[in-house]
Amino acid sequence: MADPRLQAYLEACGADALVTADPGLVRMLAGHAAEVGFGPSPFQLPALVVAARDAPAQLVCSADEAAAGDATHVYEGFTTAPLDPLAGAAAALAAAMAAAGVRAARTLVDGASVPSGLMPGIAGAVAAPIAGLAMLPAAKTADEVAAVEASLRLCEAGHAAARAATREGAGELDVWAAVSAAIEHAAGGRTTVIADLLSGPRTEDIGGPPVPRALARGDLVLADIVPRLDGIWGDSCATWALGAPPPAAADMHAVASQALRAGLDALRPGARAGDVDRTVRSVVEAAGHSYPHHTGHGLGFGWHEEPRIVPESATVLAPGMVVAIEPGCYRGGVGVRVEVVAVVEADGCRVLSRHPLGLDRDGAEAA
Amino acid sequence: MADPRLQAYLEACGADALVTADPGLVRMLAGHAAEVGFGPSPFQLPALVVAARDAPAQLVCSADEAAAGDATHVYEGFTTAPLDPLAGAAAALAAAMAAAGVRAARTLVDGASVPSGLMPGIAGAVAAPIAGLAMLPAAKTADEVAAVEASLRLCEAGHAAARAATREGAGELDVWAAVSAAIEHAAGGRTTVIADLLSGPRTEDIGGPPVPRALARGDLVLADIVPRLDGIWGDSCATWALGAPPPAAADMHAVASQALRAGLDALRPGARAGDVDRTVRSVVEAAGHSYPHHTGHGLGFGWHEEPRIVPESATVLAPGMVVAIEPGCYRGGVGVRVEVVAVVEADGCRVLSRHPLGLDRDGAEAA
Repeated sequence: MADPRLQAYLEACGADALVTADPGLVRMLAGHAAEVGFGPSPFQLPALVVAARDAPAQLVCSADEAAAGDATHVYEGFTTAPLDPLAGAAAALAAAMAAAGVRAARTLVDGASVPSGLMPGIAGAVAAPIAGLAMLPAAKTADEVAAVEASLRLCEAGHAAARAATREGAGELDVWAAVSAAIEHAAGGRTTVIADLLSGPRTEDIGGPPVPRALARGDLVLADIVPRLDGIWGDSCATWALGAPPPAAADMHAVASQALRAGLDALRPGARAGDVDRTVRSVVEAAGHSYPHHTGHGLGFGWHEEPRIVPESATVLAPGMVVAIEPGCYRGGVGVRVEVVAVVEADGCRVLSRHPLGLDRDGAEAA
Repeated sequence: MADPRLQAYLEACGADALVTADPGLVRMLAGHAAEVGFGPSPFQLPALVVAARDAPAQLVCSADEAAAGDATHVYEGFTTAPLDPLAGAAAALAAAMAAAGVRAARTLVDGASVPSGLMPGIAGAVAAPIAGLAMLPAAKTADEVAAVEASLRLCEAGHAAARAATREGAGELDVWAAVSAAIEHAAGGRTTVIADLLSGPRTEDIGGPPVPRALARGDLVLADIVPRLDGIWGDSCATWALGAPPPAAADMHAVASQALRAGLDALRPGARAGDVDRTVRSVVEAAGHSYPHHTGHGLGFGWHEEPRIVPESATVLAPGMVVAIEPGCYRGGVGVRVEVVAVVEADGCRVLSRHPLGLDRDGAEAA
């Protein structure tokens, strides 16, 4: 009855259920996309799920964020009455445990996400082993891949707006405002977006939010745009120039693009993530450049999840894994990064991204 | 040595220290403004503080968000190595407990915010009583009031932009985009903003985010703009019309404005929050209207905190409390709300808000 990925995890751990408030796992296991853009609310705790092997997933959340469905256990949210959402959530959690038919002693708890104040109600529950927990959302279903693709369409709206807003005298914050507005129009509503947005010599800094810096001719713009739609994250990076790029940028862009292609060629079932990292990183290093960050990462339920494409990773790629590859070169006041997202399929991978990657601001060259 | 508000709370509870990961309390007790706009990170847990009676506050966070200062205990954040931020945070928490010189058995834990996975390291710690915890940030210092005022200046930038963007054919999302861009320009960087943005008949819905609805002449726009600057929240609401307002709106606006003035007159030391609620609500009800929400609330470290201005509240107002008052009228496809923020002073209150409240879009009538 439960998600087969969850069943495998629970069986490996000898447990009957998992309790987690991680918004990615809540989305995966209960289909519920919690709001994450504003921090904690005084009216409610983060939504959580009791995901049992032999019962439908039981969602625990405030009445304000409950959707239809009889597997949801709610407590009062926004109210003029006295506030004690912890007590409300504890009572709803107890009801969820009963509805799932599980005992605390056979239940795993995600210690990074479940608030400690809920533990008295599930005393005896066991810390969820993190390695298996991290792998839980790695391989996606076809529907989940489609949801990532929907988020990538927002990335493309963002990149188109960013390139169009790249004008002499415009500030990084103006470019960002154009990105945000375009994504929210495409999504039809407010949308959480993580973004690196750097220009000029700041591109060497790799990442960071936009600052009040005005663009000048010859500047690079590096934009890494990461929106969340219906609880599912997209990701995308490109680097382009306003006018003629700095002398070093063309070589860096060619190297990063070559490394990206090598990474996509290496994405196939059975490949070790650590080997993919080495394949991509060595292209960049052979050209005399380097990047200090990961080569890539899984994404979807989170913006950085397994399979992490990092040195030493023993994670083995499998069909359905959705992976971003994002090599870059950073030196001497110039930074260039390109990134696309692909899904691992039976005989390789399929690129899901469509945003332009060209160094020319108006270039239509796609992934 | 510690914050006198914390000292009083700990003494009332017979405890030596408080551990909390609530971002408002972390800002108050450790001076650290954590990012809250993107949900949990795979690289770190929420920043937390060990706030002891007899030692400086000890901040526990990842190296990525650590600021200068020797009372910070860090663990690795963004990395290409294997991820286990829970283990990192647990080790840093142990170091913080040792540096603060406190024992778990004499320590209170904020059960709504501290992740359960950290509890084994502070086994024997006691659940923090929530009533006192809620009152902890209610009365602000002069510096904290100034920080709220800085956030209110962002509110004003947002309201000015929203009124200017209120044009026939513009969508709610366009108005919101103008608000967001204006606030981020005023703040000099990305800014978390909660906002109700409703137009036309949707104003009767009281709250909610903008949707793809185009404005027409005769529409009301209701904007409740709540930005966070350096970890401190502002708040502000106004309602205005595009062209001639709906017939009911002028009366509703007059009633809500009268109720707001009554609320400000009632904000003084010694007043009971429940009485302030009744004073304001009765003005609206005497005019044949009603609102189903709170009359107001404290704000600053959170966007809704004590003193909550709600029926039955026995909270007694005191100097330094920062309070938003926000009466409204909602009926027949028309909703009007006005809101300003004031600080309770020795002999009444001082209004801190400066955004225009007029029903005329171009009206300059201020709070």
